[in-house]
Amino acid sequence: MPSLLRDRPASTPEMLAVFGDEALLKAALAFEAELALAQAELGLIPRGDAEAIAAACASPFDIAELAEATAHAGTLAIPLVERLRARVSPPEAAGRVHKGATSQDLADTALMLQARDGAALIRRDAARLADALAVLARAHHSTPMLGRTLLQAALPITFGLKVSTWLSGVTGALTRFDREIGAIRLQFGGATGSRAGLDGQGAALAERLAVRLNLPPALPWHAERQGVAGLASALAILTGAIGKIAGDVALMAQVEVGEAFEPRQAGRGGSSAMAHKRNPTGCQVALSAAIRAPHLAATLVSALPQQHERGLGGWQAEGPVLAELFQLTHGALAAMVTVIEGLEVDEGRMAANLAAAQVGTDTGESAALVAQALAAYEKDR
Amino acid sequence: MPSLLRDRPASTPEMLAVFGDEALLKAALAFEAELALAQAELGLIPRGDAEAIAAACASPFDIAELAEATAHAGTLAIPLVERLRARVSPPEAAGRVHKGATSQDLADTALMLQARDGAALIRRDAARLADALAVLARAHHSTPMLGRTLLQAALPITFGLKVSTWLSGVTGALTRFDREIGAIRLQFGGATGSRAGLDGQGAALAERLAVRLNLPPALPWHAERQGVAGLASALAILTGAIGKIAGDVALMAQVEVGEAFEPRQAGRGGSSAMAHKRNPTGCQVALSAAIRAPHLAATLVSALPQQHERGLGGWQAEGPVLAELFQLTHGALAAMVTVIEGLEVDEGRMAANLAAAQVGTDTGESAALVAQALAAYEKDR
Amino acid sequence: MPSLLRDRPASTPEMLAVFGDEALLKAALAFEAELALAQAELGLIPRGDAEAIAAACASPFDIAELAEATAHAGTLAIPLVERLRARVSPPEAAGRVHKGATSQDLADTALMLQARDGAALIRRDAARLADALAVLARAHHSTPMLGRTLLQAALPITFGLKVSTWLSGVTGALTRFDREIGAIRLQFGGATGSRAGLDGQGAALAERLAVRLNLPPALPWHAERQGVAGLASALAILTGAIGKIAGDVALMAQVEVGEAFEPRQAGRGGSSAMAHKRNPTGCQVALSAAIRAPHLAATLVSALPQQHERGLGGWQAEGPVLAELFQLTHGALAAMVTVIEGLEVDEGRMAANLAAAQVGTDTGESAALVAQALAAYEKDR
Amino acid sequence: MPSLLRDRPASTPEMLAVFGDEALLKAALAFEAELALAQAELGLIPRGDAEAIAAACASPFDIAELAEATAHAGTLAIPLVERLRARVSPPEAAGRVHKGATSQDLADTALMLQARDGAALIRRDAARLADALAVLARAHHSTPMLGRTLLQAALPITFGLKVSTWLSGVTGALTRFDREIGAIRLQFGGATGSRAGLDGQGAALAERLAVRLNLPPALPWHAERQGVAGLASALAILTGAIGKIAGDVALMAQVEVGEAFEPRQAGRGGSSAMAHKRNPTGCQVALSAAIRAPHLAATLVSALPQQHERGLGGWQAEGPVLAELFQLTHGALAAMVTVIEGLEVDEGRMAANLAAAQVGTDTGESAALVAQALAAYEKDR
Repeated sequence: MPSLLRDRPASTPEMLAVFGDEALLKAALAFEAELALAQAELGLIPRGDAEAIAAACASPFDIAELAEATAHAGTLAIPLVERLRARVSPPEAAGRVHKGATSQDLADTALMLQARDGAALIRRDAARLADALAVLARAHHSTPMLGRTLLQAALPITFGLKVSTWLSGVTGALTRFDREIGAIRLQFGGATGSRAGLDGQGAALAERLAVRLNLPPALPWHAERQGVAGLASALAILTGAIGKIAGDVALMAQVEVGEAFEPRQAGRGGSSAMAHKRNPTGCQVALSAAIRAPHLAATLVSALPQQHERGLGGWQAEGPVLAELFQLTHGALAAMVTVIEGLEVDEGRMAANLAAAQVGTDTGESAALVAQALAAYEKDR
Repeated sequence: MPSLLRDRPASTPEMLAVFGDEALLKAALAFEAELALAQAELGLIPRGDAEAIAAACASPFDIAELAEATAHAGTLAIPLVERLRARVSPPEAAGRVHKGATSQDLADTALMLQARDGAALIRRDAARLADALAVLARAHHSTPMLGRTLLQAALPITFGLKVSTWLSGVTGALTRFDREIGAIRLQFGGATGSRAGLDGQGAALAERLAVRLNLPPALPWHAERQGVAGLASALAILTGAIGKIAGDVALMAQVEVGEAFEPRQAGRGGSSAMAHKRNPTGCQVALSAAIRAPHLAATLVSALPQQHERGLGGWQAEGPVLAELFQLTHGALAAMVTVIEGLEVDEGRMAANLAAAQVGTDTGESAALVAQALAAYEKDR
Repeated sequence: MPSLLRDRPASTPEMLAVFGDEALLKAALAFEAELALAQAELGLIPRGDAEAIAAACASPFDIAELAEATAHAGTLAIPLVERLRARVSPPEAAGRVHKGATSQDLADTALMLQARDGAALIRRDAARLADALAVLARAHHSTPMLGRTLLQAALPITFGLKVSTWLSGVTGALTRFDREIGAIRLQFGGATGSRAGLDGQGAALAERLAVRLNLPPALPWHAERQGVAGLASALAILTGAIGKIAGDVALMAQVEVGEAFEPRQAGRGGSSAMAHKRNPTGCQVALSAAIRAPHLAATLVSALPQQHERGLGGWQAEGPVLAELFQLTHGALAAMVTVIEGLEVDEGRMAANLAAAQVGTDTGESAALVAQALAAYEKDR
Repeated sequence: MPSLLRDRPASTPEMLAVFGDEALLKAALAFEAELALAQAELGLIPRGDAEAIAAACASPFDIAELAEATAHAGTLAIPLVERLRARVSPPEAAGRVHKGATSQDLADTALMLQARDGAALIRRDAARLADALAVLARAHHSTPMLGRTLLQAALPITFGLKVSTWLSGVTGALTRFDREIGAIRLQFGGATGSRAGLDGQGAALAERLAVRLNLPPALPWHAERQGVAGLASALAILTGAIGKIAGDVALMAQVEVGEAFEPRQAGRGGSSAMAHKRNPTGCQVALSAAIRAPHLAATLVSALPQQHERGLGGWQAEGPVLAELFQLTHGALAAMVTVIEGLEVDEGRMAANLAAAQVGTDTGESAALVAQALAAYEKDR
């Protein structure tokens, strides 16, 4: 809910913008404009009307006022269409705004347009994180350190082996996310998903509209939401994979361990009470996201049994939660990209801690496992 | 995360304001001002310095800029204290801003000041909802209708019995919330919760500060968070009790059932595609909140095992989630107050549906149970 | 779901027994027996019939067979009542088995009888844990150690201050649990909660039955479930408060920190691969429970909007989940009682780690805060 | 946790057996036997020793006793290996039991063997459900009925369109599940995942062991758990897609709607209080699972940030939760297969309800959309 002071530290300006009000309004207006233009292409409405509608969609509306009206009406489409119609003349043209569409067509498609942009940011930075991890794993494929299980000293590993496990987690999660992106697609079904009132051209219209909006076409999915739940789950799992890295780095950065540290950045990780502190702020962002994200994803899985042709409550829960998931995941990603790209590794402390634990020096097949993991990564890139 | 178009329909302007940026900044500045003034009362700092600090706290800061700086630093206190110090002179006075406090003292106390205001709204409107339910139960203590179990026709009840169950749910949940409000209290412990650096006057200072901020005093609870989790759980359970009402009303409002309806309001519950529709928009808001709230509360329970003297990630997850819970709960409450206060009941349809089900007419002790429930309600009010 | 190998390590034999099949069957039979006897007291059925019914309830049934029949019927009451009737003669007496009751009266009351026994175990061992923590806090009220925030070295505290925070968490959570125990009460409402078919003596019968079963009486709460959700939340929060302790102990037991250790027990915490290991097995049990419990509690909050007079799906989700919560919470409690009662504290390492961190030696008001926390604890005991 | 009376109604005998104690013990013994035999193949241990070990693995152990010992030790491997060694002679052979392996290799691999069998049941019955839905959609591609949005009358659709949405949900969820099955693979990494102590033949041994156990090989994934979280999420989403069907059927089966009913089965769906009732018991099972499953899946996503080379608490939470998810999902599947295969559809009531709603008769492109959905289904089968 709207608080920059609370939400900004958990995300990035880029992703906040993607799911911000201006972007949402822009996406909603794009839906209405392209719908009219696609209908004109098929001869469903006059071209002049379509152009008048598209022109009306070219300038924004007052967001606070629109938000109030949306709250009153129960859905964005009602006040938005009303306001658009007031901008369009003549009245017959105005009546063609939103023709054949339903509130959920607008809301879902707008959300998907935002999700498409959000997904691009996630993919970009997850790839960057993976690359940084691969570099780190390669550099330390044979750097000995203490392996720790159940938070106790176990046997030696190499730092590269630990990092290659981080890498596998991120790439595995990214692969899943790439597959779930298939859920980002056009919604267009009309009042009850039957595409009525379109002279039998509903399928053709859906296809053209999809092309115009650069979204994959789809059968109406008003009450078939497993794709959204899958996308949300993939985001939460990716956040968890990032959180795993953050947790390990924070444990290594403990003063008594001292094996790895977030890069120094002026003004980052300070303390309001203790000048000596160097807090693992990037890890904090990622761990915080990893605590919140699973519950957000579960919300969308809980919401799956939506009633009949459009759900009451379940559907309406999705938009804000999916937006928040994208924002938290990107916040975690961006924070850990910085941490991993600049990670300070203290090989001396690693060696000293290993020696102190008196568990020998045999790192087994660590280096070979790193090589295997890197080869797999290079192949799938 | 910041989107009025997404968040406003799920909450109320009042509660959005309570947890908005301006309120948060105001609460944070109140903490710093009152801290200085309380320290002056105890002779810990010169009165003139305290007044200079309080004066510096009297005007706000640019929120977007502060949010950026907070994201960079990792916590609000760092840039806020820095900016306050820049406003205060001489330098010795500036150095006394935030004296003896830690980031979490500021963040937790500010959150609690917001929670206190939020709790007042919840209590006000939950009481109003309960009153409306009591009126409705009394009016219909003997109105026969079909009882339904497992979504199947069962035996007769009275509508008053159904409503008195709703009432018990809301009052039970409100009683719990009232108890959990005890978690709304001052946070003041300094860097590690030991109240160091205060000439042994930490306890006295905490007490004075609590009085000045009108919050109950408390031992430092930086890493002892069961109170916050309890408050969150109480909000989610209240939302669930409201969601139960919304679910029943929506089922009764089905066209084939037709026993009860949300009040008609111009422009509320319309459809962008179907002029005949009268959507249960209030129920939608409440049901949507009831899907989201349990997961948000669970986030704060998941976050309980926070490390050592201040957690990494778990603590930072709390503020945004608690704010969202207050906002959703109040959205659900406000929506259902309107629904219940104006509920249209069709006794004729109730009677007809009961007759059609052919399950007799014996409503058992329904009326007596309603009387008992109302008596209990009156007693506890 | 039934697996001793998976479930036993997460709980205790005592709590597994409380929620085991034999206990459930016994509770269900107690409900039917006492219902008949209470009805005889009120003259609702002949005393001889009641005694015949009670006699039929005195011996158990084949559980595997009954479970199959329950799965087929959809609820335990149906096959159980059928089997009981087959044991009772004459036919008129048999027909009086379960008179005036519904499936949910049986199922809820049986669950509550189990919950009552479960709650006694929780209270017993939470009190024991709190006592052990109080002893530990007192012993170490002035033992200096490094305070750690955000997993980084901060300023000095005393170990007693850390422990007193653990204590506050446990006692706060136990206080909540004690209040939520009020949800453990009789369920008796008949088919639709109207107590029909009882000659107007439903209220009197409910009262007698409550006395006979030693449960508080209540208005029917078939679809008013906030009490159950509150109880579940209190269990999860208690588990989280225990998990906080476990997390801190595990961090202190790291080889590089070495400040505190679980007590040595032959065969506990070994490793199948490394003879030198001493795993924090008690902490493991508690942390694992603290990960699972919040989601289980949230399940019951999610289930609150149950339809009409008896829910479809939501209600049926409660029993297994509540049982699991009791089992996990008790597993965590029992594990940490052992850990805290036998905790090995290395004051030397605490002092050495503190010195190494070079953050001074001022523990502020730690000892005074410990004294305050202990005084509060003694007062509320 | 072990209660047949509680757990059997929510699952199936088949899936309860797959995750039962006997199956777990069998899988654990298979791991130890095949590990020894694979090592013999590679000359890592003498063939005779391997055969002695395999022979020791051929007979089971007392499960209750083993569960106690597991609870004490903290992991199954410790008592199991101890008991196996006691069965093997000479001592040198006994010492080769579990050689090069760690507790988690055993526990994860055993869980995966169970998951493999569980996945086969899920796939079999999800395919059967999808087939039944396709048959139903085809049969009713043009059967008119009332479309309902937000639980209100909207515009006409065909029943086939509704069913084809159910079908898309199930097939989409099954496709995801099929992909996530890739997480079911061998775990073999030794103490810290470095495959130490195997004369550099760790990779070869892992490969042979994978072949012998008929599991895909993998790099060690002791602390890289996104695959498990993905599998769990896919199960929960599938359960949600099934719950969507169950919710719709239950709404259609309301006495006032009367459009579709679960098939009649003697003794199924009765009431202990009302002879006339025909409860939607299959839907109840599916809806109950759909409430529980999202929270269970979220548990495994929450558990992702596991520490270092083997987590404390997070890892140990996975086994019981994943087992429960398989059991609930299969319970929901099996219940709805029966419901859909035998669904009683009342076309007359559909027509009557549609006429009564006075929303016209135009079902738009419903039939064409059904045809498209069925064509997509046939293609992907």
